[in-house]
Amino acid sequence: MSDLTESGATTPGTHGTHTVQGLPITELAERFGTPLYVYDGDVIARQYNGLRDLLHPSVEMFYSLKANPNVSVCALLRSLGASAEVSSLTELVTAQRAGVPAERIMFLGPGKSRDEITACLKQDITVICESFGELAMIDEVAAGLGGVARVVLRVNPSFAVKGGGLTMGGKPRQFGIDEEALTAAPDLAARHPSVQLVGFQAYMGTRFLDEDVIAENSARILELAENLSERLSVPLEVVDVGGGLGVAYFPKERDLDVPVLAQRLNPVFESFAARHPETRLVMELGRFLVGHSGLYAVEVRYVKESMGERFAVADGGTNHHMAAVGIGSFVKRNFPMRLLNRAGAEERAAWNVTGPLCTPNDTIGKAVELPADLRPGDLVGVERSGAYGPTASPVHFLSHGYPAEVLVHNGEARLIHTRDDAESMLAPQILHDFG
Amino acid sequence: MSDLTESGATTPGTHGTHTVQGLPITELAERFGTPLYVYDGDVIARQYNGLRDLLHPSVEMFYSLKANPNVSVCALLRSLGASAEVSSLTELVTAQRAGVPAERIMFLGPGKSRDEITACLKQDITVICESFGELAMIDEVAAGLGGVARVVLRVNPSFAVKGGGLTMGGKPRQFGIDEEALTAAPDLAARHPSVQLVGFQAYMGTRFLDEDVIAENSARILELAENLSERLSVPLEVVDVGGGLGVAYFPKERDLDVPVLAQRLNPVFESFAARHPETRLVMELGRFLVGHSGLYAVEVRYVKESMGERFAVADGGTNHHMAAVGIGSFVKRNFPMRLLNRAGAEERAAWNVTGPLCTPNDTIGKAVELPADLRPGDLVGVERSGAYGPTASPVHFLSHGYPAEVLVHNGEARLIHTRDDAESMLAPQILHDFG
Repeated sequence: MSDLTESGATTPGTHGTHTVQGLPITELAERFGTPLYVYDGDVIARQYNGLRDLLHPSVEMFYSLKANPNVSVCALLRSLGASAEVSSLTELVTAQRAGVPAERIMFLGPGKSRDEITACLKQDITVICESFGELAMIDEVAAGLGGVARVVLRVNPSFAVKGGGLTMGGKPRQFGIDEEALTAAPDLAARHPSVQLVGFQAYMGTRFLDEDVIAENSARILELAENLSERLSVPLEVVDVGGGLGVAYFPKERDLDVPVLAQRLNPVFESFAARHPETRLVMELGRFLVGHSGLYAVEVRYVKESMGERFAVADGGTNHHMAAVGIGSFVKRNFPMRLLNRAGAEERAAWNVTGPLCTPNDTIGKAVELPADLRPGDLVGVERSGAYGPTASPVHFLSHGYPAEVLVHNGEARLIHTRDDAESMLAPQILHDFG
Repeated sequence: MSDLTESGATTPGTHGTHTVQGLPITELAERFGTPLYVYDGDVIARQYNGLRDLLHPSVEMFYSLKANPNVSVCALLRSLGASAEVSSLTELVTAQRAGVPAERIMFLGPGKSRDEITACLKQDITVICESFGELAMIDEVAAGLGGVARVVLRVNPSFAVKGGGLTMGGKPRQFGIDEEALTAAPDLAARHPSVQLVGFQAYMGTRFLDEDVIAENSARILELAENLSERLSVPLEVVDVGGGLGVAYFPKERDLDVPVLAQRLNPVFESFAARHPETRLVMELGRFLVGHSGLYAVEVRYVKESMGERFAVADGGTNHHMAAVGIGSFVKRNFPMRLLNRAGAEERAAWNVTGPLCTPNDTIGKAVELPADLRPGDLVGVERSGAYGPTASPVHFLSHGYPAEVLVHNGEARLIHTRDDAESMLAPQILHDFG
């Protein structure tokens, strides 16, 4: 896709007012206030169903809550058929409130607490174990509960895969157990009598946008799992090939072509499934499912010029959308941004769009091409902001608090996270008297 | 100071257990849990009084809440004599709950809302205005309230000052009004009948650690204020020289020498005060007052090796302490870190201290020298973490939530911010039914 502003949450409407499922952004801003996150449920469904319809049926799609842990977003994805991959006690509770049954939840993460492990084992939730130390703790907790824990081992492979935004495997990492360390421990199962090893997981990196790389990645993980299964005598009840499917954010990036992706991936899964018809194949999907769906809408409060540059100072910034300063990138690049409430002048200008913080780093768009007549009251949107939005941002900075979040589904806009105010920010604080 | 681990919140005690005002960290961790922020009120008092005792008496010290907006931290500083500089409605409410009277509060920030301006004007709180657009809005709001607003103009000077960590003035910035634009608008006061211009502010940058640079900086701002006062016929009731006093975090940095700083600064203020005895001189201090006081304590959950590197996976990480990944620096540097609960082996090793997030970026210390026998259950502390801690971090990431914060004062540890849990994280979320 060459124009990244297309295929997001909003569509240009009459007089240039953008809409989400026919609802004008101006009305949503009026009703819920700004700064505002709006998620388009149809876009989430399009992403989920688009892949589900074409992906090999033996692959189970897990939603990685970390991308957007809102309970209603999770409930929508559950209603579409997604399972859930969680990484904290709160994410586990969230998935369960959203209606995901225990057998369709997996718990992952390098630093699980004893409480988290206990909660998983009590409910027979599969744990993806990331270290020998964790395996010992799982064994101990399971023994204490008088049961046997089903555990998938996360492997840090000896190989790395190129083409991702952030490498998670094949390097020294806090994640998983090094492949070499695993093969050097053939008595792992015997040493942990209250653990039943049931498979393997590997996660190579994030933000993959090349279909061939993803297919190669998955093929190598499946091969790795087969090898390890044999060497360690671990049955392949579960193999999780990770995910890392990306979303195009920046110029020259293009979104994954789902039919092409399925064409590349399915033979890999087909051949594996033929050899291992009983294996549960797992793919983890976070950003890919929700990234496109989100819009971060801010209102311009002031426009100004400083030493030849134009600034639009908005009511929200990096406190709600830290990813917009450039993901894993030293050269900061802009997310797709546009004027939402009107067409604006045909003449374009380079605008720095900044937020309310007292740091020059609070810039969500640097020299963005926007109408030259940008003015206070205008609504500016950052597209493709459905993943790693407010939950991955310092929302308490300058005590501005969490923004409102709205999910539009079946043409209806519903508040899914209330906006913080002074009372909600001060409620967890305790004032002592110092005289 | 060559050893940055000194002069922080903790002191080594018997058997290597570090203490805060005599309270062992192990007891605090037991009582309040981890991950935990501990602030030492004595250190805050030492920083405040140390400068107050030596600084020219005509200078009023304002605490910049953004560094650590907890209401009890603010109350402690108010009890010591600090005024308050705030940048959001919640910070304003916080300062007032902490007992700071309206006449000792100033409101600053590039993106003030109409509500924020209205709240200030209703209570005669001085507004530091950052743009022509804001000045027009202040004038309009004041007229609506039937009053006159006292306004300090923030200037973006034509000169820049070197030696700071992050340049805020003398460049194209969202802050203040360019000096040249101001001098080109001599009728500013006349055009805003409901505004009374009462002075100037400039803020050149943050993290200054050179006493001479700070003195030069202040001298140039005072000179600028005198020039502008004359050219624009604005009385000098208030001149705010900003601040930006730093804290040494990294090897080869050294803390400001307060007696030297006072020696350099006082003649500058003395000479100005002699010419303008009625002017209220303002200095903004955030990081300098609270930075040293804070300790971020995490518990090691797992230790592991990956491809030749050692990892200590802890229960907290960049989700609570994003600054520790390296402040405004492409080359990430480590904050001072140490083992808190015991002396540990004499043999040292290079440890990557990571948190519970599922990203390799969740590293609060890279190759930190710590005892080679680091093990699960150990407490590791990040020193000098009293400023820009959890409020400047993505505390919602992976739904781990806000950590507990404790202030130790007069030998007593008091909880000042409760720890989030699943219920508090889910309370502002609304679950809708999608079938």
